[in-house]
Amino acid sequence: MPAGGDASAQDARWMRVALGLAARGLGRVWPNPAVGCVIVNRGRVVGRGWTQPGGRPHAEAEALARAGSAARGATAYVSLEPCAHHGRTPPCADALVAAGLARVVTPFDDPDPRVCGRGHAVLRAAGVDVTTGVETVAAARLQRGFLLRQTVGRPLLALKLAASLDGRIATATGESRWITGPGARARVHALRACHDAVLVGAGTARADDPMLTVRGLGCVPQPVRVVATGDLDLDPGCALGRSARDVPLWLLHDPARTPPARAAEWTATGARLIAVPGMAPAAMLSALGAAGLTRVFCEGGGQLAAALLAADLVDALHLFTAGVALGGDGRAMLGALGVDRLAAAPRLRLLRAEALAGDVLQLWERAPDSLAQGPGAR
Amino acid sequence: MPAGGDASAQDARWMRVALGLAARGLGRVWPNPAVGCVIVNRGRVVGRGWTQPGGRPHAEAEALARAGSAARGATAYVSLEPCAHHGRTPPCADALVAAGLARVVTPFDDPDPRVCGRGHAVLRAAGVDVTTGVETVAAARLQRGFLLRQTVGRPLLALKLAASLDGRIATATGESRWITGPGARARVHALRACHDAVLVGAGTARADDPMLTVRGLGCVPQPVRVVATGDLDLDPGCALGRSARDVPLWLLHDPARTPPARAAEWTATGARLIAVPGMAPAAMLSALGAAGLTRVFCEGGGQLAAALLAADLVDALHLFTAGVALGGDGRAMLGALGVDRLAAAPRLRLLRAEALAGDVLQLWERAPDSLAQGPGAR
Repeated sequence: MPAGGDASAQDARWMRVALGLAARGLGRVWPNPAVGCVIVNRGRVVGRGWTQPGGRPHAEAEALARAGSAARGATAYVSLEPCAHHGRTPPCADALVAAGLARVVTPFDDPDPRVCGRGHAVLRAAGVDVTTGVETVAAARLQRGFLLRQTVGRPLLALKLAASLDGRIATATGESRWITGPGARARVHALRACHDAVLVGAGTARADDPMLTVRGLGCVPQPVRVVATGDLDLDPGCALGRSARDVPLWLLHDPARTPPARAAEWTATGARLIAVPGMAPAAMLSALGAAGLTRVFCEGGGQLAAALLAADLVDALHLFTAGVALGGDGRAMLGALGVDRLAAAPRLRLLRAEALAGDVLQLWERAPDSLAQGPGAR
Repeated sequence: MPAGGDASAQDARWMRVALGLAARGLGRVWPNPAVGCVIVNRGRVVGRGWTQPGGRPHAEAEALARAGSAARGATAYVSLEPCAHHGRTPPCADALVAAGLARVVTPFDDPDPRVCGRGHAVLRAAGVDVTTGVETVAAARLQRGFLLRQTVGRPLLALKLAASLDGRIATATGESRWITGPGARARVHALRACHDAVLVGAGTARADDPMLTVRGLGCVPQPVRVVATGDLDLDPGCALGRSARDVPLWLLHDPARTPPARAAEWTATGARLIAVPGMAPAAMLSALGAAGLTRVFCEGGGQLAAALLAADLVDALHLFTAGVALGGDGRAMLGALGVDRLAAAPRLRLLRAEALAGDVLQLWERAPDSLAQGPGAR
């Protein structure tokens, strides 16, 4: 039991436990939210659960199964409003009522129009004590991808950049492997694993011929690999094309610029082609949201990264810095932004900076806006 | 008294106390070393001292004056070998003997040819127990400016760079104030205060018209202001020129490229002109070492910073990063380095990274070399 404090401080502490459980599902439950649930009876944990890979069972069902009869009279801390709609499984709100929970604590309503307050209403109607508005900022940060998709139709976009001290990603002659060390590269694989998809631009796909898989972490399923390539000017024999039947590969392309023969070649590899007329950054993310993704990890290159920043679509920035200087003649980490005044430049807020095996990792996030407080807290 | 441990761990702890005292003199004692001394009698501190502004009295004299008769039979921890030569004051080694110290602990010999083992010898000859080799790495780091000047004739060079997330110091149109916030700017003033001099290139002096003084910290005396300007193409009516009689201003210039009338104008402002034929970075630093400086803080611009990095003359790098992106069309933080292979690029080692009032400060330092272990440890 978290120590001391008044009732609301206790609620906050248990909700943070639920959020820690929720984080285990990130990257493996899309299009569902990654939810965590801890059931507490007289100060003792009697059940824990989190959304299982693929999105089911839900966190509440997992925790209830573990709690058994100990759930009677207990409090359930759930990182999102329990569902109230009949899908492939019965509604969690009904299950919580049936198990005899005395109290349910959540951060805010689920913005999913099939839930949206109905879960809380079912609980209250059955006489369960419902408290919402607990740890809303932390819950909104953790579940931001799901919330963004529900409210504005696009996934969370996290950008990774790795550069020299002076912001360069390659020497003047183009050498770029390796600027950061093995510790930073291992962290990148861990970051891939907690996102639904990894996104790169076509220039990076051509230059690096990457696999974009998670390696060294036993990650199953793998994140979707996504390449933004307006005219599909990519060799289907590249590493991504050769592995498209083993690990999902989606190609965002503009039908008006794509030769039909090239599209047929790529479809034959097993890749999924997604049409994005005009290829505007917001349209690309909306298409990925429509396809079910809630969390996308973009690894560049500099042109795509600059386009996402300029369109104010970067929710988190993971910036790796190595202890090497490449000079003004090295390759820039970002394309042109056309910023003339400092006040007009994209700004982010520091979350933390850490030393990482000889490199530095800075985590920046979007400045607070209405979403940061969570939708419909009450 | 530092807690527990064996004798050598105790020695290391007390030496770190002495180093903490030594740090108080950094930036205000050149050309002397900033030394700290703590005198310990039966586990209790009986005297503390550090080199006073201008370089005298020495740390040992300060600590002995405070200890009085309590120094008899005590141990003195001194961050550098006590001096053995008669200068403006009697030798510290003699004073320690006269005060009846039983033991003296130091990290290493003072490389000053007038001392260089003689201080330790005087103590030993008088029956004082002498231990050296204690906390050599930390002591060499703190006193590196003095050690470098003694051994290779140049001061320590610390480089400050402040840039956007993507390594830019101004927008495409040249706007650069302010990229980092007030917390970072206050830290820059504190960094100026612990160096003997602040150095900038002529381009920065022309573009920013800076004062380069320490403000907001009650700092007296001010660090020397130094501008590297091959042909003295600077307006003597600039902020630096107008204040040259109040705060020292030195101009490094190439006599072969300097019009005599311009030199006369600048001399009339009260500035000191230092001739550096050819203006090679190593020659500039040697000239500053010959003039007595032990610690120089370079604040750019990008051309001077690149030249110092390319010449492998940067001992420490203070890199401030702000949460703003300026894009590949912004102004680069470093000039060209001509690095074709990653293996040939200047490399630094991470000391620490910290969040600083919404910005990030990374401290990188020169990779270890023989000097890092201190000269003549034995």
